[in-house]
Amino acid sequence: MGFERATILGVGLIGASVALALRENALAKEIRGFGRTEANLKKAVDRNIIDSYSLDIGEACDGSDLIVLATPPAQFVDLIRRASPSIQKGTIIFDVGSIKAGIVTALEEETPEGSFFIGTHPIAGSDRSGIETASADLFAQALCFITPTARSDKDALGTVTGLWKSIGATVHTVSPEEHDIIFSSVSHMPHVVAYALVNTVIDIDPSFIEYAGKGFRDTTRIAMSSPDLWADICVHNSKAVTQHLDLLVRNIQTIREALAKGDHGSLIEHFRRAKEARDRIE
Amino acid sequence: MGFERATILGVGLIGASVALALRENALAKEIRGFGRTEANLKKAVDRNIIDSYSLDIGEACDGSDLIVLATPPAQFVDLIRRASPSIQKGTIIFDVGSIKAGIVTALEEETPEGSFFIGTHPIAGSDRSGIETASADLFAQALCFITPTARSDKDALGTVTGLWKSIGATVHTVSPEEHDIIFSSVSHMPHVVAYALVNTVIDIDPSFIEYAGKGFRDTTRIAMSSPDLWADICVHNSKAVTQHLDLLVRNIQTIREALAKGDHGSLIEHFRRAKEARDRIE
Repeated sequence: MGFERATILGVGLIGASVALALRENALAKEIRGFGRTEANLKKAVDRNIIDSYSLDIGEACDGSDLIVLATPPAQFVDLIRRASPSIQKGTIIFDVGSIKAGIVTALEEETPEGSFFIGTHPIAGSDRSGIETASADLFAQALCFITPTARSDKDALGTVTGLWKSIGATVHTVSPEEHDIIFSSVSHMPHVVAYALVNTVIDIDPSFIEYAGKGFRDTTRIAMSSPDLWADICVHNSKAVTQHLDLLVRNIQTIREALAKGDHGSLIEHFRRAKEARDRIE
Repeated sequence: MGFERATILGVGLIGASVALALRENALAKEIRGFGRTEANLKKAVDRNIIDSYSLDIGEACDGSDLIVLATPPAQFVDLIRRASPSIQKGTIIFDVGSIKAGIVTALEEETPEGSFFIGTHPIAGSDRSGIETASADLFAQALCFITPTARSDKDALGTVTGLWKSIGATVHTVSPEEHDIIFSSVSHMPHVVAYALVNTVIDIDPSFIEYAGKGFRDTTRIAMSSPDLWADICVHNSKAVTQHLDLLVRNIQTIREALAKGDHGSLIEHFRRAKEARDRIE
């Protein structure tokens, strides 16, 4: 599928890893970066992650036949709107954001006539961010969701699907709406819970968190994620996330009632059901 | 402080690691194991974790000057009651259980005249269990809570405190009641939440759990813990755990309301408060 030049908008962990994977698999002859922080882009050139960069979105996209949206998702629509006059015909654009429904529709509307947008979401995030942890094989054996719509160009969909497979990902195709319900349940809602859990311990006694063992550290690791990014994600997916938080609260209260009654048997049942499901994905 | 013979009641991850640490630090000349499963005790002898074993609690404790309670906590009182006729004068007994208040009182009552019980709780658990992962340095740099009461013998308290320090732990002394409030907040309540979180994803759609990334796996790792053990722990500490679950539900609902209103600023505030606290213990 070889591209002449790929432009990575947002050279963080995911953007830099896409760049490295494109290079490693000879999928792009040249790679250009765009971002807000020149020091980071310089570092990315020094580390041979990108060949060149621009702080001007038009200049960054001009002449590229592949554009990868890898900034926080809240910036995607504005970036494509600003890049639009410089995007050449035939260019393929995909994003790597973790929210899809509203954003895919908006990006389809902003994509200029004759170029093609496909929504994607590789499951390869981390509580860490930045190019220091980027790697060409971040997506090897990772799952990548692709979220086409009725408006998606079939050839562009095939190209983007092939690209993700070429860099090692297993591709799973769902609608943007189904994607967001899945990710509310296994990612967005759990992030809210992890943040709430830490806040609850601080409410009880700010000194208690010092006594946390490995279990608490694991459970709340995602509470170290970026507050701004996760506020954006939750607001964009608020319908599913609020519904799922309500279901979670109901499950917590069911266990709480069993506990208040000293109903050992029901507690074991609730815990066993969870353990069996969790053991299956270990 | 050298003991003539230590008996480990319950040769699992913690019990076996205490045995290995006692041996490594020359704190006991001989180590005997007791448990329900002969195959496990044989394996412990083969791996040189214990010197001998007995399936009879009286025989296991007879002639020992140190007894370590390392079974699930629900069995402690019954074990000491049955061992009581065989416990010699001067014997020091400590447990390693993760609940303290009710159990310490009950164990103090069951400990025969002239021998001494001290409650302890090393923070070195894991979702894994069994002697396969046991090691002499499991407690190196670990925190160990010691929970004396007005009835605790001062010399025995000094000996047990010294023992934990000798095998590498940092000792923290609190009352049994304070211990249980701390551990409800950083361990027991979070376990309930992890189990409830997995059950919620299954309720939404049993297939979604397959799409879980590293974040969800970390957050729910403790949901692989033993349902029986954790039902026991939660029931024994139900007053604190139910209170803390209520506080957590309130925190979740506060975030849920901010989300339903699209109140980006408050969401960032709640998330940032949690992130700052969690970052401090990383």
